[in-house]
Amino acid sequence: MSENQKLKIDACFSPFLYPVYRDHESIVVIIDILRATSAICTAFHHGAEKIIPVAKVEEALALKQQGFLAGAERDAVKVEGFDFGNSPYDYMGDHVKGQTIVLTTTNGTQAIEAAKHAYKVVVGAFTNITALCDFLVKEQRPILLLCSGWKNRFNLEDSLFAGAVTQAIYERASESYKLGDACLALRYLYQMAEQDPNKFLNHSSHKERLARLNLKKDIRYCLTPDQTDVIPVLRDGALVRM
Amino acid sequence: MSENQKLKIDACFSPFLYPVYRDHESIVVIIDILRATSAICTAFHHGAEKIIPVAKVEEALALKQQGFLAGAERDAVKVEGFDFGNSPYDYMGDHVKGQTIVLTTTNGTQAIEAAKHAYKVVVGAFTNITALCDFLVKEQRPILLLCSGWKNRFNLEDSLFAGAVTQAIYERASESYKLGDACLALRYLYQMAEQDPNKFLNHSSHKERLARLNLKKDIRYCLTPDQTDVIPVLRDGALVRM
Repeated sequence: MSENQKLKIDACFSPFLYPVYRDHESIVVIIDILRATSAICTAFHHGAEKIIPVAKVEEALALKQQGFLAGAERDAVKVEGFDFGNSPYDYMGDHVKGQTIVLTTTNGTQAIEAAKHAYKVVVGAFTNITALCDFLVKEQRPILLLCSGWKNRFNLEDSLFAGAVTQAIYERASESYKLGDACLALRYLYQMAEQDPNKFLNHSSHKERLARLNLKKDIRYCLTPDQTDVIPVLRDGALVRM
Repeated sequence: MSENQKLKIDACFSPFLYPVYRDHESIVVIIDILRATSAICTAFHHGAEKIIPVAKVEEALALKQQGFLAGAERDAVKVEGFDFGNSPYDYMGDHVKGQTIVLTTTNGTQAIEAAKHAYKVVVGAFTNITALCDFLVKEQRPILLLCSGWKNRFNLEDSLFAGAVTQAIYERASESYKLGDACLALRYLYQMAEQDPNKFLNHSSHKERLARLNLKKDIRYCLTPDQTDVIPVLRDGALVRM
C-alpha cells in the first residue's frame, strides 16, 4: 500500500482543539477514561437502552424533570439532585436496564458535543478496548482519537488510552495506517506505561484529584481492559449500542 | 517545599489551545524547532538588533516596503520577494548584524502573536537550551512551554524539545516544580528520544516535509544543542536579546 493510500490515525488532546482536526471522513473515538466513557460503556453493558449526552447541567435537569434518569458530574463530584454521578459503579445493576439516561460531565460530554457532526462518533475506554479496536480496523476508515482532557487541557490517562488504541490498531494492521505526530508520541508513551498503567498515572493531575476523593476503586475499574464488548455509538444525538 | 508552593511547568501543544492555558504569571517559552525559533536564535547570535514577528505575509510585505529586511515562510518554503525564509542558514553572517528584521512564519510567529500579552515571552530552541533553562530556573516563575505545532496541530519536534526543557529544569531544581500532565508525558517522551533525537523524529510529519525539500542540513542544525547563549525576549512587540 502506498503512503498516500494509508489511513491516518491521529489524536486530538482537547475538545477545544477539535475544530483544527475536524474532517468529514474520520471515525471519532471519544475518550474520557476517568470516568465518563468508562461509565457509559458500563451502563450499556448493564442493559441501558440509550444515553443522551448534554453539555450543560441545566439541560440535564430539564430532562430529568421530564422523567428521565439523569447523571451529572462536575469537578469529579456528583451534582446534587441527580440520580448518578459519573462513577461506573453508579451504572451497574438492574436499575439501568432498558432505561434512557441523560448525562452531563465536566469533560466527556463536552467532547461528544464538539464532535457530534463527525462521520461517526463512538465511545472508547479500557473497558471496551479490544471490541473497539476490532471494530475500527474492520471499518477501514481514518481514525481520530478525541481525548476529553481536563477542562480542555491535555490529560495523561486519556492520552495513555489513545496510545493503547494506536498500538492495538498498529498490531492488527500496521500496513494500512499512517500515524499522525500525536499518535507517534502516544504509541511511545503507551509502550513505556504498558507494564503498569496504574503506576504510570501516579502523578497525573486527575488521578490525584480522584484519589483525594477516595475513588481508587473507580480508577482500578477504569484501567481494567475488556470488561465488555459493547461499543456505544452516537445516533441522532443519543448514544446507543452499536 | 509544599505541593501548593511549587511552581507549575506545563506545555500547550498548539497556539490555538493557548487561551485554555493563558495566565498572568507564567513565563511563556515559544517553541518552533523546525525552524522559526531556531532561526531567531541564530539571527541574534549573529548580531541582529531586533526581530519584529508578524502573523501575516501582507504585514511583513508592508514593513519590507518601508525598508526593513524581511523573512517570510509558508509551508516550509520562502515566500517570493522576501529577503529570507526561515532557514537558520539565512540568518548567519554580517548581513544581519545590527539589523531589524521583520519575520512571518507558518507556525512560530503565530504562537508569539497568541502569547504576546503574557507576563514574559521568550524564544527557545535546542540551539539555546542550556542558557534558556538556566534563565528559567533563576526566574522562579511558573513556566508554560508553548509548542507552535504545525498549522495548530501537535507536532513531534516541538514536543520533544518541551520534554527536553522539562527534563533539564527538573534536573536543576526538581524540588521547586510541579509538572502538569503534558510535561509528565513529554518528560517520558524525551527520555526515550534522548539518545538519538534525529532518529526519534524520523517519522514525524514535518521532518518528512523538510526532507522532501532537501533540508536535512537544516534539521541537523536545529537539533544541535547549545550553539548560542542568546535568549530572545519579546519587548514592546519586538524580539530583542535579553
